[in-house]
Amino acid sequence: MPLFGRKRVKDQPVEEPEPFRLPEPPAPGPGGMRSVVDHRDYLLSCIEPLPPFGQQILDAVGLTLCEDVVSAISLPRFDNSSMDGYAVRAQDIHLASVASPTSLPVVGEVPAGAPAPHSLSPGTAMKIMTGAMLPEGADTVVPYEATDRGEQDVRIVEALDPGSNVRRVGEDINEGEVVLRAGDRLASRSIGLLAGIGIDKVMVRPRPRVVVISTGDELTEPGFVLQGDQKIYDSNSYMLAAAAKAAGAQVFRVGLVPDDPERLKQVINDQLVRADLILTTGGVSQGDYDIVKQVLPELGATDFTTVAMQPGKPQGFGLIGDDQTPIIMMPGNPVSAFVSFEAFVRPVLRKLAGVDSYLRRPVIATAARGISSIPDKLQFARGVVAEGDNGELIADLASGHGSHLLGGLAGANALLLLGEDTEFVAAGDQVEAWLLLEDG
Amino acid sequence: MPLFGRKRVKDQPVEEPEPFRLPEPPAPGPGGMRSVVDHRDYLLSCIEPLPPFGQQILDAVGLTLCEDVVSAISLPRFDNSSMDGYAVRAQDIHLASVASPTSLPVVGEVPAGAPAPHSLSPGTAMKIMTGAMLPEGADTVVPYEATDRGEQDVRIVEALDPGSNVRRVGEDINEGEVVLRAGDRLASRSIGLLAGIGIDKVMVRPRPRVVVISTGDELTEPGFVLQGDQKIYDSNSYMLAAAAKAAGAQVFRVGLVPDDPERLKQVINDQLVRADLILTTGGVSQGDYDIVKQVLPELGATDFTTVAMQPGKPQGFGLIGDDQTPIIMMPGNPVSAFVSFEAFVRPVLRKLAGVDSYLRRPVIATAARGISSIPDKLQFARGVVAEGDNGELIADLASGHGSHLLGGLAGANALLLLGEDTEFVAAGDQVEAWLLLEDG
Repeated sequence: MPLFGRKRVKDQPVEEPEPFRLPEPPAPGPGGMRSVVDHRDYLLSCIEPLPPFGQQILDAVGLTLCEDVVSAISLPRFDNSSMDGYAVRAQDIHLASVASPTSLPVVGEVPAGAPAPHSLSPGTAMKIMTGAMLPEGADTVVPYEATDRGEQDVRIVEALDPGSNVRRVGEDINEGEVVLRAGDRLASRSIGLLAGIGIDKVMVRPRPRVVVISTGDELTEPGFVLQGDQKIYDSNSYMLAAAAKAAGAQVFRVGLVPDDPERLKQVINDQLVRADLILTTGGVSQGDYDIVKQVLPELGATDFTTVAMQPGKPQGFGLIGDDQTPIIMMPGNPVSAFVSFEAFVRPVLRKLAGVDSYLRRPVIATAARGISSIPDKLQFARGVVAEGDNGELIADLASGHGSHLLGGLAGANALLLLGEDTEFVAAGDQVEAWLLLEDG
Repeated sequence: MPLFGRKRVKDQPVEEPEPFRLPEPPAPGPGGMRSVVDHRDYLLSCIEPLPPFGQQILDAVGLTLCEDVVSAISLPRFDNSSMDGYAVRAQDIHLASVASPTSLPVVGEVPAGAPAPHSLSPGTAMKIMTGAMLPEGADTVVPYEATDRGEQDVRIVEALDPGSNVRRVGEDINEGEVVLRAGDRLASRSIGLLAGIGIDKVMVRPRPRVVVISTGDELTEPGFVLQGDQKIYDSNSYMLAAAAKAAGAQVFRVGLVPDDPERLKQVINDQLVRADLILTTGGVSQGDYDIVKQVLPELGATDFTTVAMQPGKPQGFGLIGDDQTPIIMMPGNPVSAFVSFEAFVRPVLRKLAGVDSYLRRPVIATAARGISSIPDKLQFARGVVAEGDNGELIADLASGHGSHLLGGLAGANALLLLGEDTEFVAAGDQVEAWLLLEDG
């Protein structure tokens, strides 16, 4: 009975599935902290652009194309008139002038979208509308303005070169031509082009689905009455949801989660099914109630670190659940959360969406007054950048440095980037800034 | 029977309602054409911003506020800790140093969102989390880093000024303060601010509802097979719908309307109910099939004119239906339609949405090569603006001037504005450009 003689499965050494690990994080810098650039590059190295998705062209505005688009037709598809007027043979009107008009019999009419009734015989004219197909035999269109608009016969007062006011087949696009390429971001003009060559669906990177979660027993939903002196309104999840939405994401904001490990685990597990990226704020510092830091390692591979930046020092990242869904865990102070969004989340969203440049393009502005900075950290100061009298950009601070100042944040239109080596920017010195443009 | 003796109503002079008229249009310029600026100003003078609308804050991102927002609370609401650490009285640790730490008994703990168990007695410390309310009697927070993190007693190695690491009530926002003003555009940071002061709904200008209609017997929907040699795909309604969407509008694209006056009237009448603005392309020129121009005057007050621009010369505008809904009727060539959108529709959309600046901000670039222009018309050339070696902007033409060239339009990233007085821009000369940014 060889069946029973076989070695039983449970006697075999059971191979434990290797737990999923994050790639080796970058080594910390001199101060024991990771640099902003290292941390961002690390996050970007851990994620891939979302898989291509077929989308109706009107829903693809602003998305990134994942295929080269080849035109199956030429544009124009046929020789056609660029004016309302009369189709003729140029040689039949080569003597026409205001002093001595040429008169031709009008033998028919070609509206746009309909065929010419017949080909054009020499010495005749055919009325033709803009966009209408040039009748066979004609090579030129005389616009109304150069005629008497005659119905039976037309008097033409201008000689024209052959081909005048005619759009040639393929003049814009040739059949078989690549008109858009994988990686192109679809502006409205590209949508017009796609429609013009008859394409109604394209493969694009979808909008990233972002789930935003706030944690904290102290938080209350806006619109409700604060129950108790210690409660505050939740601003982070609204601000981050709004920022992600303005950056092109599809956003799901999840109501407040109390500082309860089991509840937090359950909420995150429930949300994984619809998330390409999860954002949390709060609970990543050294406090005893920092449950995000405490719970997340149970859900997947995580990396909690300190980044050499101000604000936004404590940062968490993970790839969690069965699909290794990325999660970015930011500090809970509103300004820290906003700066973390700009420094890390926006680039990650851009990579997910297949956008080529992950970073905002910095501008160089002149400091309106001295700005002190913290050495060994990249400082993100809330700034106001305005145009000076000569068109140059002038940067000033929007408010103090406190990481809880929502008012100052709302009043800023830029983040000023003061590098690790900078202790002081004097008035008149140049300073790098990110203009917060996409965002209103 | 005085009842019968009364003068019958029909004998009274019936007052015909005065037909609605457009304001007097501006006088044409020297060439018999209206200037671009005059036409735009005329359109803007005929419309008003949309009425305010209550919106949930997350749906208000990017919209314009219609009310001043006053904070009903202070932020912070109470003195609270900006660090995880220990609440103390500064005077109790004024001699603390690394060489000679001060030891204090830990008499309790304040998590965020909960009240302190009791007030702080002199000579004691209370553990406190970031954001937690400072217990009565305390004036300073010693961060973990300046302690041994003791549980029974804590050794403190640094003297601190009173108020250190404490966020004072109202430091960010005072109760009764105006935090945002009517006319402000709501960025994500403003959404965070609104949430932070407990506001969940605001009055904003809604997204304009734009109905886009294409007319023309020759048009076919993308995705379908062209039936007949003379048919072409409809690109305009897709391009304009995409452009309006990218500009923040809520867009309804209406399938192709054939060149049938009754059908067109019916479609437009049916759409009025959901339109803040109607856009059509085609049928505004001098052709015999220009049904838009033929039909629209029956639906309301209209103004068909020629504008001193290239492309985009024939332009129509109207206020139609019972509500005097604005309609902008553009020429049917794709590039003409796109330029008309930028020159007229975008400013109108911005005014409807309550945005302050109606125009794109032009940039000044250096022409990479000579560009000839048509005198007496404002020419909008499709351009490519790129940054040169020294950060200066360099402008080149994207393609030829043909108004049907979709390929060239999709390849452009700017419109170069060559004024009425310009016949030629030499290489190295400065040229004004609109960067087509919002649009991908």
